[in-house]
Amino acid sequence: MKPVLARVEAVLMADHGVKSFETRRLAEAELDFGGIRGDRHFGMTAKADVRQPEYPRGTEIFNRRQLTIVSAEECAAIAEALGIPQVKPEWLGANLLLSGLPDLTALPLGSRMIFESGAGLNGQGENFPCREPGELVQANHPDHPKVASRFVKAAYRKRGIVCFVERSGIVRPGDAVRIWVNDGTLQ
Amino acid sequence: MKPVLARVEAVLMADHGVKSFETRRLAEAELDFGGIRGDRHFGMTAKADVRQPEYPRGTEIFNRRQLTIVSAEECAAIAEALGIPQVKPEWLGANLLLSGLPDLTALPLGSRMIFESGAGLNGQGENFPCREPGELVQANHPDHPKVASRFVKAAYRKRGIVCFVERSGIVRPGDAVRIWVNDGTLQ
Repeated sequence: MKPVLARVEAVLMADHGVKSFETRRLAEAELDFGGIRGDRHFGMTAKADVRQPEYPRGTEIFNRRQLTIVSAEECAAIAEALGIPQVKPEWLGANLLLSGLPDLTALPLGSRMIFESGAGLNGQGENFPCREPGELVQANHPDHPKVASRFVKAAYRKRGIVCFVERSGIVRPGDAVRIWVNDGTLQ
Repeated sequence: MKPVLARVEAVLMADHGVKSFETRRLAEAELDFGGIRGDRHFGMTAKADVRQPEYPRGTEIFNRRQLTIVSAEECAAIAEALGIPQVKPEWLGANLLLSGLPDLTALPLGSRMIFESGAGLNGQGENFPCREPGELVQANHPDHPKVASRFVKAAYRKRGIVCFVERSGIVRPGDAVRIWVNDGTLQ
């Protein structure tokens, strides 16, 4: 197997407190086991919520959703579907913006993304669109009608993935990323 | 989605030291984040080895292989392929023996196994057969020729899965297990 090569366009975090999921750009980020320290999704564990109905709400479970990743190509496709100039990764609460892997959302579970520092992320599948990012996209486009209500459909299968840190290290904008797409043989 | 129902036939651990992977039966086990404390595969992290060539050998990575699970049906199929009376989970270094899910090895990544205590495991895919368990099966069948050399082929796609603890709790022989087979919608 050979890795797919992609590129880190932006590294971001949400540290505005629990009221906002909006992220801001960083010069670099240290990926620790658990995610980006200080980010609202940081932690080796998290509380089960409506997304994990297999567990009672509020119980402590392993955090597979430490970081979210979106692709520049899919953000552009969402913007096009909504008829707006752009969809920023900040508005989606993304921690990484990649380019060069257009179908990021379809990346199979267990795929590995390895950065120049040696840091590694393990892909944990599609991040299903929810309403809140659509409201933030709408707030940034007051002249465009019904952006919020059309967001979930427009972003379906383009919303990127969640992942956990498999190996710690630094990640920086401009980094090359080697992506080992899991074909069922990755261990 | 509805869960598949299976049953815990045995709970086992390897605590003979690092020289042996053979497991022994327990009356019950506490699943912690990291696995079964005292088991040779316990840990939130582990060193990358030959199974993870995407990482330099020996670097600390998240441990997706905290426990291994085999099915009674697949153990019986391996024994049949080898022409021997039985293949015990002990010889495969398994931590759990399940019945009622014949195709355990095919369980998709991200599937959830929930036990009566509420403990949960997250399936991380097929455990590819290696030579050592075949040698232990052979040692227990001295009258049967070439069991060791035929093991890897006989056990292919029947060797069970690895998993990590998603929610802590007790697991006991006789427990019912609800298995949520990941169809791409589990978050």
